[in-house]
Amino acid sequence: MKYLEESIKKLGNEAKRIVEEIMQGKNPKFLIPVRTLSNVYFDKKTFSLRLGNKKAEREFFNLKEAKKFLQTVLVLSFAYQLLKENVHASLREAFYAMKRTLPNSNENTFDEQDESDSVIIDLEVTLDLLREQMHLNADTRGRVVGNVIIEDRGDVVDWSKLGSGGWAIPSNVEAIEFKKVDAEFILVIEKNAAWERLHEDKFWQKHNCILLTTQGQAPRGARRLIQRLNQEFNLPVYVFTDSDPYGWYIYSVIKYGSINLAHISDRLGTKDAKFIGLTMTDIDEYKLKNWTIKAKDVDIKRAMELKEYEWFKKKEWQKEIDKFLERKYKAELESLAGRGLKFVTENYLPEKIKNEDFLD
Amino acid sequence: MKYLEESIKKLGNEAKRIVEEIMQGKNPKFLIPVRTLSNVYFDKKTFSLRLGNKKAEREFFNLKEAKKFLQTVLVLSFAYQLLKENVHASLREAFYAMKRTLPNSNENTFDEQDESDSVIIDLEVTLDLLREQMHLNADTRGRVVGNVIIEDRGDVVDWSKLGSGGWAIPSNVEAIEFKKVDAEFILVIEKNAAWERLHEDKFWQKHNCILLTTQGQAPRGARRLIQRLNQEFNLPVYVFTDSDPYGWYIYSVIKYGSINLAHISDRLGTKDAKFIGLTMTDIDEYKLKNWTIKAKDVDIKRAMELKEYEWFKKKEWQKEIDKFLERKYKAELESLAGRGLKFVTENYLPEKIKNEDFLD
Repeated sequence: MKYLEESIKKLGNEAKRIVEEIMQGKNPKFLIPVRTLSNVYFDKKTFSLRLGNKKAEREFFNLKEAKKFLQTVLVLSFAYQLLKENVHASLREAFYAMKRTLPNSNENTFDEQDESDSVIIDLEVTLDLLREQMHLNADTRGRVVGNVIIEDRGDVVDWSKLGSGGWAIPSNVEAIEFKKVDAEFILVIEKNAAWERLHEDKFWQKHNCILLTTQGQAPRGARRLIQRLNQEFNLPVYVFTDSDPYGWYIYSVIKYGSINLAHISDRLGTKDAKFIGLTMTDIDEYKLKNWTIKAKDVDIKRAMELKEYEWFKKKEWQKEIDKFLERKYKAELESLAGRGLKFVTENYLPEKIKNEDFLD
Repeated sequence: MKYLEESIKKLGNEAKRIVEEIMQGKNPKFLIPVRTLSNVYFDKKTFSLRLGNKKAEREFFNLKEAKKFLQTVLVLSFAYQLLKENVHASLREAFYAMKRTLPNSNENTFDEQDESDSVIIDLEVTLDLLREQMHLNADTRGRVVGNVIIEDRGDVVDWSKLGSGGWAIPSNVEAIEFKKVDAEFILVIEKNAAWERLHEDKFWQKHNCILLTTQGQAPRGARRLIQRLNQEFNLPVYVFTDSDPYGWYIYSVIKYGSINLAHISDRLGTKDAKFIGLTMTDIDEYKLKNWTIKAKDVDIKRAMELKEYEWFKKKEWQKEIDKFLERKYKAELESLAGRGLKFVTENYLPEKIKNEDFLD
């Protein structure tokens, strides 16, 4: 639980600094990195989305900023209490817990959750603390199985002995301790149905891997879990999604981070992640044409957007996107079932892994 | 695994019947209960949504019906194979696995998943078999903790020893065996964040209950799990949702079933379920007014629809809906955090349960 003491210290120091400024008769202020697109760039060295150096002041004695200043202090104090009591709160709970009407006025501390969310991210950036390390949890999805034993809240959980269900990934994985990790790679799967197929077929036992489904776009808990397993145990990460822009973006968020969370790409992203498929070439290679779906206008539009993102500028990805734009069809994970229910388990994935046939 | 043999037998008999009709030179046909609203009624005796007695014929020698007949045979045969091999498929996989182009034509067996889904439900109704009992799985969400030990696929899973994560509820819970169930009731929670709050506060230990979140509208796996625990162990079920029409409907689906699955209300519904809150009265009683949200037009419209449903005609529900329509605001589970983060765990829920303050 080292992060806990560190978080308490960081929040405490920030509070002390504010108090000292007040005692010295200064105008107390926060210095907050700017999070608009103008201050986001793609760092080619680390290959991830990053924040630039622009910062904005948030002062108390300033009519325009006084309310935001108050909100920042409220969040600071709320997070500090959470950590001191070692309890967690969802973003929604935090909003309600901090929302009150100021005495002798109709003015609320917060009117909408947007406001508290935004201040929470401000603090996250300013203090270089993940919101999870302040015990503020986003909602979550995702499940996992494999030859892994963890300790969490005093329970020892064996991910290999959970029946058909698997372990439900919590929103906060900071405090998890890995007791045993016996796996050669992590297979991250967009859809739960495909995860159930591979789990039923004992894919993770045969190939000694961890099977993890994000159930759609990867929630923060799952991204952080993937990153920790990758960094702490050097496990390769293969991402398996539909062959469409939505699937590609799921992959890129796991790998590089997302635009609105660019400040924590290094805390949530897994640079090593590779895209195992489905690719456009797979559709030819594995004779899936018969089970493709016509792309919709929004798919085309989204593909053209992705094509312009710096982190999709690699040759192989430009080719992939161009093929999609030319053919105007997509294929889902489940289309492999057209070749037989176990085709994905017994043919497709083993071949792709053996041949290291990945996009990077 | 008694259901497995029973399912194989039912599907096998149906196939034999078709073969015999062909051998006797008859026009082979299926007799399929009609599933349109005209054949759905609310049964006041069992207090659940039911199908009437109308049936439609589906013949092979009939230009209009031949394709549907073929599709029905394909699904019958596909499900039979699944059961024989004891594997499962998602609805999407099933669609792809059965979709092919007929020789010397441009005609597909299935063009869209809607078609295969609909035929699967036809068979479900005709044979009185849950689709899960044919090993056809819907997608799923939901997690659970409590003093329960189950056996599933050879693994013994202890729901009380899963750290912060809990057991991920699979799409198919037919084969689960309950080894030990030590609980006084089941608390079903709409939202994962509230579930994490109660789990962290050890609510299930203090009150000896099972904590289950549906993560939104209850998926079939979760509904069936709730029903099995209720019926096999006589456990009361309390449903805890936001105070709005969406929350009420989540409750009513758990209790009575849904319109489009009226044929299996008795296989998925839990008649005993009670609504623990939030109610409009709770908002006064627990001083939550400050954290309510203005109702939107769609909320009002939906409330007026629910008011007309037969299964919301009970006096207490009509009063509840009327109050909502009059006040025009709603309250979320998390609004209880306005009274303090642990208010829900230490005050609200214990009081509601002790006073049996439920809507039925």
